[in-house]
Amino acid sequence: MKHPGCWKMLTVAMCMALLGCLQAQELRGHVSVILLGATGDLARKYLWQGLFQLYLDEAGKDYSFSFHGAALTSTKQGQAFIAKVLESLSCPEDVAPDRCAELKGQFQRLSAYRHLATSKDYMALSKDIEAQIQHGGLREAGRIFYFSVPPFAYADIARNINSSCRPGPGAWLRVVLEKPFGHDHLSAQQLATELGGFFREEEMYRVDHYLGKQAVAQILPFRDQNRKALDGLWSRHHVERVEIIMKETVDAEGRTSFYEEYGVIRDVLQNHLTEVLTLVAMELPHNISSSESVLQHKLRAFRALRGLQKGSAVLGQYQAYSEQVRREQQKPDSFRSLTPTFAGVLVHMDNLRWEGVPFILMSGKALDERVGYVRILFRNQAYCVQNDERWVADQSQCLPRQIVFYIGHGELGSPAVLVSRNLFRPSLPSESWKELGARPGLRLFGRPLSDFYAYRPVREQDAYSVLISRIFHGRKDSFVTTENLLASWGFWTPLLDSLAHEVPRLYPGGAENGHLLDFEFGGAQLCFSQRQPERLVPGPGPAPMPSGFQVLKAKYRESPLISAWPEELIAKLADDIEATAVRAVRRFGTFHLALSGGSSPVPLFQQLATRHYGFPWAHTHLWLVDERCVPLWDPESNFQHLQTHLLQHVRVPYYNIHPMPVHLHQRLCAEEDQGAQTYASEISALVANSSFDLVLLGMGADGHTASLFPQSPSGLDGEQLVVLTESPSRPFQRMSLSLPLINRARKVAVLVMGRVKREITMLVSRVGHEPKKWPISGVLPSSGQLVWYMDYEAFLG
Amino acid sequence: MKHPGCWKMLTVAMCMALLGCLQAQELRGHVSVILLGATGDLARKYLWQGLFQLYLDEAGKDYSFSFHGAALTSTKQGQAFIAKVLESLSCPEDVAPDRCAELKGQFQRLSAYRHLATSKDYMALSKDIEAQIQHGGLREAGRIFYFSVPPFAYADIARNINSSCRPGPGAWLRVVLEKPFGHDHLSAQQLATELGGFFREEEMYRVDHYLGKQAVAQILPFRDQNRKALDGLWSRHHVERVEIIMKETVDAEGRTSFYEEYGVIRDVLQNHLTEVLTLVAMELPHNISSSESVLQHKLRAFRALRGLQKGSAVLGQYQAYSEQVRREQQKPDSFRSLTPTFAGVLVHMDNLRWEGVPFILMSGKALDERVGYVRILFRNQAYCVQNDERWVADQSQCLPRQIVFYIGHGELGSPAVLVSRNLFRPSLPSESWKELGARPGLRLFGRPLSDFYAYRPVREQDAYSVLISRIFHGRKDSFVTTENLLASWGFWTPLLDSLAHEVPRLYPGGAENGHLLDFEFGGAQLCFSQRQPERLVPGPGPAPMPSGFQVLKAKYRESPLISAWPEELIAKLADDIEATAVRAVRRFGTFHLALSGGSSPVPLFQQLATRHYGFPWAHTHLWLVDERCVPLWDPESNFQHLQTHLLQHVRVPYYNIHPMPVHLHQRLCAEEDQGAQTYASEISALVANSSFDLVLLGMGADGHTASLFPQSPSGLDGEQLVVLTESPSRPFQRMSLSLPLINRARKVAVLVMGRVKREITMLVSRVGHEPKKWPISGVLPSSGQLVWYMDYEAFLG
Repeated sequence: MKHPGCWKMLTVAMCMALLGCLQAQELRGHVSVILLGATGDLARKYLWQGLFQLYLDEAGKDYSFSFHGAALTSTKQGQAFIAKVLESLSCPEDVAPDRCAELKGQFQRLSAYRHLATSKDYMALSKDIEAQIQHGGLREAGRIFYFSVPPFAYADIARNINSSCRPGPGAWLRVVLEKPFGHDHLSAQQLATELGGFFREEEMYRVDHYLGKQAVAQILPFRDQNRKALDGLWSRHHVERVEIIMKETVDAEGRTSFYEEYGVIRDVLQNHLTEVLTLVAMELPHNISSSESVLQHKLRAFRALRGLQKGSAVLGQYQAYSEQVRREQQKPDSFRSLTPTFAGVLVHMDNLRWEGVPFILMSGKALDERVGYVRILFRNQAYCVQNDERWVADQSQCLPRQIVFYIGHGELGSPAVLVSRNLFRPSLPSESWKELGARPGLRLFGRPLSDFYAYRPVREQDAYSVLISRIFHGRKDSFVTTENLLASWGFWTPLLDSLAHEVPRLYPGGAENGHLLDFEFGGAQLCFSQRQPERLVPGPGPAPMPSGFQVLKAKYRESPLISAWPEELIAKLADDIEATAVRAVRRFGTFHLALSGGSSPVPLFQQLATRHYGFPWAHTHLWLVDERCVPLWDPESNFQHLQTHLLQHVRVPYYNIHPMPVHLHQRLCAEEDQGAQTYASEISALVANSSFDLVLLGMGADGHTASLFPQSPSGLDGEQLVVLTESPSRPFQRMSLSLPLINRARKVAVLVMGRVKREITMLVSRVGHEPKKWPISGVLPSSGQLVWYMDYEAFLG
Repeated sequence: MKHPGCWKMLTVAMCMALLGCLQAQELRGHVSVILLGATGDLARKYLWQGLFQLYLDEAGKDYSFSFHGAALTSTKQGQAFIAKVLESLSCPEDVAPDRCAELKGQFQRLSAYRHLATSKDYMALSKDIEAQIQHGGLREAGRIFYFSVPPFAYADIARNINSSCRPGPGAWLRVVLEKPFGHDHLSAQQLATELGGFFREEEMYRVDHYLGKQAVAQILPFRDQNRKALDGLWSRHHVERVEIIMKETVDAEGRTSFYEEYGVIRDVLQNHLTEVLTLVAMELPHNISSSESVLQHKLRAFRALRGLQKGSAVLGQYQAYSEQVRREQQKPDSFRSLTPTFAGVLVHMDNLRWEGVPFILMSGKALDERVGYVRILFRNQAYCVQNDERWVADQSQCLPRQIVFYIGHGELGSPAVLVSRNLFRPSLPSESWKELGARPGLRLFGRPLSDFYAYRPVREQDAYSVLISRIFHGRKDSFVTTENLLASWGFWTPLLDSLAHEVPRLYPGGAENGHLLDFEFGGAQLCFSQRQPERLVPGPGPAPMPSGFQVLKAKYRESPLISAWPEELIAKLADDIEATAVRAVRRFGTFHLALSGGSSPVPLFQQLATRHYGFPWAHTHLWLVDERCVPLWDPESNFQHLQTHLLQHVRVPYYNIHPMPVHLHQRLCAEEDQGAQTYASEISALVANSSFDLVLLGMGADGHTASLFPQSPSGLDGEQLVVLTESPSRPFQRMSLSLPLINRARKVAVLVMGRVKREITMLVSRVGHEPKKWPISGVLPSSGQLVWYMDYEAFLG
C-alpha cells in the first residue's frame, strides 16, 4: 500500500486474475477471418459479400470479428482494392438504406488489407491478432484462413500458418480450401498428405460450392422431414432413374488454359455432381444434424458405387473449343484437343436400395440452356383405367411422378424444390421455403408447373454465404473431407484414365446440338443415341471400326476350329453352349456343364447372364473344371468369379451348383480330407457315366489346361477323376478334373484368347499327343466332340 | 357284249375303276360344313357370313362345298330362318352387285336347313352327304361340324357325330367348339375328357374369337417379320410393361343369368386376354407357320407364368349390377352379387426374358370407352440433353416408345398396328396392311397419331371369317388345344378360388368412374390407387379393416411378448431381425441366423427380401433350424421354401448358405452318413461358441418346435447339437437343431400365428419347464434373450 506503483501493479495483477476467472464465462469470443487471395476474382465476386453476411448474422450475438484481406499485392494496391470491394457490398433486401450504410461502415472498420508473403508476415499477423484481442478484453475463439489462391501456393501458406499463425490454446483453427483438389487420385492424395502435415483433418474445410446451393443443401433436410412419405419410395422398387444435371450455355473461352488441363469430368462431375449423388443415394442417418454421421453415411455410399468403365461415359467437345485453345495457348494449327467439354456418365450403386437404378450424371458447356437440377423420377406402377384425356393431375398415378431439386437458372430462374402432386404434399421449413406463385404456361420436365407442389427459398442466398456461415458453425458435413475426396477420386480416376485418349464427339453448340448429344444405356454401357452422326467438321481420331466380321471355321489339331474377333467369338461360344444345353435338357432332363476358372471366361459368363433368355438354368448343373486351394470366398477363387459374373445374375438352384470341396474341415486341400475323392463321387452320383455334357477349358501359355500343368505327376492319365495338383504360380495348390475325366465328356470346348497365346497356339498346332509336356495335347474326348474357339489374335497373331 | 345290260354293267364297272384311278389326282374334294345351332344368335350374326366368305375364297379353287344349317327347330321354321339369313349376307366391297347376287344365289343353293336331333338324323345326314358326293363325282375331303350350341348339348352331339356321321376313310373331321370350355380347371378337364372320348385332339378346334381379330392374328407375324428390330428389344431389359386391355361400355343387362355364373375373369381374362398374353410373351418359333411349334411354344409360356395369388387382382362391379341380377333372376331385395364385372390382374413370367416385367390384364363392363389393345411400352433408357421443348418425335429416344396392337373400336375405330417412330419402321405385309391416313388432333396413348408408324388392314375382316378360313386350312395354332386350355385354367383357377368371397369395389359406370378403378402394383401385389373411396352406395361385405394397429408389448412365459395383427407383426419381426443383424455385423463381422421351415416364415422372408435395404446379407450366414429328410429340391424341403422366397431375391454368398446335409451319398438321413454330426461340426467351426446370433422358431399345435416333437428320444437334452428325429406327420424323418444348441443362441424369436395356435398358446402359457411333453417349453436361452411374436389370433383368439 505504501508504494503507489506497487498498488498499481497489484491492481493489474488482480484484474488479470479476475479476467482469467471471467474469461471462460463472460469474455466475448473473437474470430479472425483471414482471406488469402483477397484481391482475386472469387473474393471480389462472392467471398467478401459472404463475410459481410456472416458479420450481419453473427456479430450481434456472442462474437466479435476482424477480417484480414491478405494477398501478395502491395499494401497500397491491396488497400485500394479492398476499399472498392467493401463499398460495393449489399445488405439484404429488408435492411433500410441508412441502417445498411451504418452496418457497412462497421464492417469496413473491422476489415483491413495486409500483405502476407513471408513467415515474418504471418508472425506479425498473429501478434496483431493477439494484441487486438488483449486490447479489446476478448477471448480468442478461432481463426479462419480462407485459401482463395491457386493450389501451388497451398504448401507455403499452410506451412506459415502452422508454424507462425496458429491461434492460442482453446481456440480453433479452420482452413478453407477451394478446388481443384488434385487432378486424379494420386495427386489428390499427395496434396492431402502434404496438407495433412500442417493441419489436422478437423481443421480443414474443403469447399464444394454446390453444397452451399440452397436446393442442394435442402436434399438431406427434405429427406429427413419427409421420411414417412419417402420411406416407401426411395429405392429401386420405385425410383426409375435419377438425373443429376448441370448444363451451361457459356463455353470455356478465356479459360482454356485451366480447362484444357481439367475437362468437364474433373471440373464438374468428380466434385459437384458426385456430392449431389451421395446426398441422394446415401442411407439417411437417424440424426442428420450429426456431421460425423452424415460423413460416415456418405463414405458408405461411395463404397457402394459400382466401378466405372470406359463404356460408362459419352464425351463431347463443342466445335469451337480446339480453335479457342490454339488461339489462347498459341498452339499450332494442327492441334486438336481431346479435352471433353460435355460428358454423360451412367453410375450404378451395388446395394439393395439402388441396385439397377440408373444415376445419370451430365454436364456440358455450350448447351442450349443454363440449368442445374437433380431429378428423381419414379416408376409408373399404376394402370389408369380411364382414357388418358380424363386423367386428373393430382389423382392420376399414371402421370409422371417426380421430385426435383432445382438448383437454379433454367426456365424457373431460381432454386426450387418440386414434388409432383400425385406423389405427396411435402413438408419444408416454412421459415426458409415458400410456395411458388403460379406461372401459367410454364412447363417443367414435361408437365405444367401446376402439376407440382413447388417451393422456392424465402430469401435467395449465394452458395458462398451459406458455406461461410457453415464454416463458422463448424458444420463439417457441408464440406469435403479427405476420405470423401479420395473416395471420389478413387471412383473417377479409372474412368479418366481409360478415357484419356478417347475422341469426344464434336457438337456445334447451343440449340443446334439437336439430338446429337442424346445418349442411352443398355446395362452399364452408354452410347450416343445417334450412332453415326454426319461429321460436322473433320474431327480427330481414327475411323470407326467396321462391324459384323464373319466367324471363320477351320480345323485345328484335326478338330473343328472357330475363330473370330473376341466379341463375335464369345457370342458364338455362348450360342453354342445354349444350344448344347437345350438339347441336353430336352434329351436327359439336365445339363451338366463344367467351367474353367481364369479371366477368359468372364465375358462369356456376362454374355450368358444377360443375353440368353432361353438358357435352361433351372435344369443346369454347374461344375468346376479346376479350383485354387483358397476358401471359396477368396477373390482368387475360381468359384468366386463364377459367382460374381454368372450366378448372381441367373437362377441356378443352390443344389445344382457344385463348387470343388477345396476347403473341408477349415483347411485347404488337405489330402486326408479326401476332397478330390468327394468331388469324384459327387460327379459319379449325379452325372450319368461321369460324362459331362460340356466341359469348357482354357489353354495356358505353357500348354496347361484345367489345373493340369506340364509334368504333373497326377491327372494326366490313370483312374482318378479328380486330382490335387501343383501350379508353378501362386496359389500353388490346385484341384482339377483329370484328363481321363475330361475326355469322357460329350463335348469339350477350348477357349483361347489374346495375343499372348499366339506362340503356344502355333506350337500346339504342331505337336502330337504329349500330355506330359503339353497337357492340352491330351485333350481328346474318347467319344465326344472337341471344338476350339480362338480369337484372331490368338490364332492369327 | 351279247347282253346290253351286261355291257351297261361293264361300262359302269369300268367307269368306277377309272374313277378310282382318277380319284386321288383329279376328283374335286368336297367339304361339308354342318353348322349346329344354325338358327342361334352367333350363327345369325357371324357364322353364316363367315361360311359365305369361305365359299367366296375357296370354292373357285379345288373344293366343292355343301352347307348344312342344323338345329332342333322344326324344318319349316328352320328353313324360313335360313332363307332370311342367307338373304342378308353381304359381299366384299369390291364385288359388283350383279356378281354378288349371283354368288349369293350359288351359296343359297348349296345351303340347306335340316333338323338334327336323333342318331337317325345324323345317319341320314351322313348318307345324304355320301350320296351327294357320289352323285357329284366327287371325293370327300372332310366335314366340319361347328358347335354353336350350349355346352350341355355337346356330349349328345359329339356321340352322334362319332358314331353316325364321321366322314369316310381319307377324309378329315373337324369339330369346332365355342366357349365356355368349363368353369374352372376341373370342369374343363371333365369336358375335355368327355369330348376326348369322341374326338381325337387334332379333330377339335376350340374357338377363341380373339385369335381371329386381325390385330391379334398379326402379333406373331409381326414379331416374325420384324425379328431383327425386335430381337434386341423384346425382353425385360427393354420392356417396361405390357398392357392387355379390353374395355367395354355396355354392361351385362339382359345377360346376367350367364354373367352371374362367370364374371369378367372367366368371360374375358381366362381366354381372350390370356391367349393374347401368350402370343406376346412366348419365345418366337423359328418357323411360325408350324402350328405344332407355335402350340409347343405357347405351352412353354404357360409353364413360365408365375402363380397368381389373391393379391394379384383387383375386382370391381358396376353399381347397377346387383339390381339387374335381382330383376332378371327374381332374387330377393337383400341379394348382393359378388360377381366381378371389372378385373385388373398383374401377371409375371418367371423366365429370363420377362422376369420382373409387369403384364397388366384388365377388362371391365360399364367403363368410359369401348376399346381393346395390347400395348408394349419400352423403358426409357436415354437421356436427352436438350430441353424437352426441342425434342423431335421421330428422333428423341426420350419420348415414349411403344408398340400397340389395337384390336378395335376406341378412338381409332378400326384394328391397327402402331409403332412409335422413334423405335423403328416396321415391316408389315403390304397386301393386307396399309398405312393409316393422317388424323389431325387424334392422340393415342399420350402421343399424337403422327408420332406412330400406323397401319390398318386393307380389308377389315370379322374374326369369325378369319377363323373359319383357318379351320378350313387346318391352322390349329389359331385355336385352343386341350393342353392350352387346361394350362390356362390351371393358371386361373387358384385365383378364382381365392377370390370367390372377395367383395368387388362398386363403381358408378362410364366416365363417372374417375380414378376409382385405377390400380397399382408393388411387387406382385395389386391394389386400387385410391385406398379408401367414399362408399358410393352401401355395398355388400364387411367394412374395411382399420389400419395402423399398435403393436402390443407384454410378457409371455416371463419373456417379452410382441403381439399385433399379422402384417404389423411380420414388419416388426423383420425390423428386429435387421437391427440384430446390423448390430452383430458391426460387432463380430458376421451374423449367424438360423431359420425355421414351415409356412409361417414365408411372409417374413418376403418382407426381408423386399423391404430391408440395409440388411447386411453379404455378411449373413443362413442356417436351418430343421429340415425334412427329402432332397433339397423337393417342394417339401424347408430349404426350398427359403430358396424360393428369400435366397432368390437377396445376395447371400453361396458359401454363407448352410442347408442341412439330409441328402448325403444319394440317400436321406442315413445314420451312417453322419449328416447331423457334419452339420454340428460346421456350426462349431463357423459360429463362435456355437451361439447363433438369432434363432427363429415356430410352435406347433402339439407344442413342438424346430423338429423336436413331444416325447422325442433325442434333442431335448444332452450333448448333441444336431439330431435326427421322427415327426408324427409326413415326411416322418427330420433333422433338427437340439434344444441345448438352440438355448446357446444370443437371441431366440418364436413366431406364432393364426387361430389354430390359440389353444396351444393358452396351454403353454400355463405349463412349466416340461420339454418332454411340450418341447417349446424347453426353449430358454441360457444367456441369450427369448422374444415371443404372436399375432392377435394366436394370442387373443
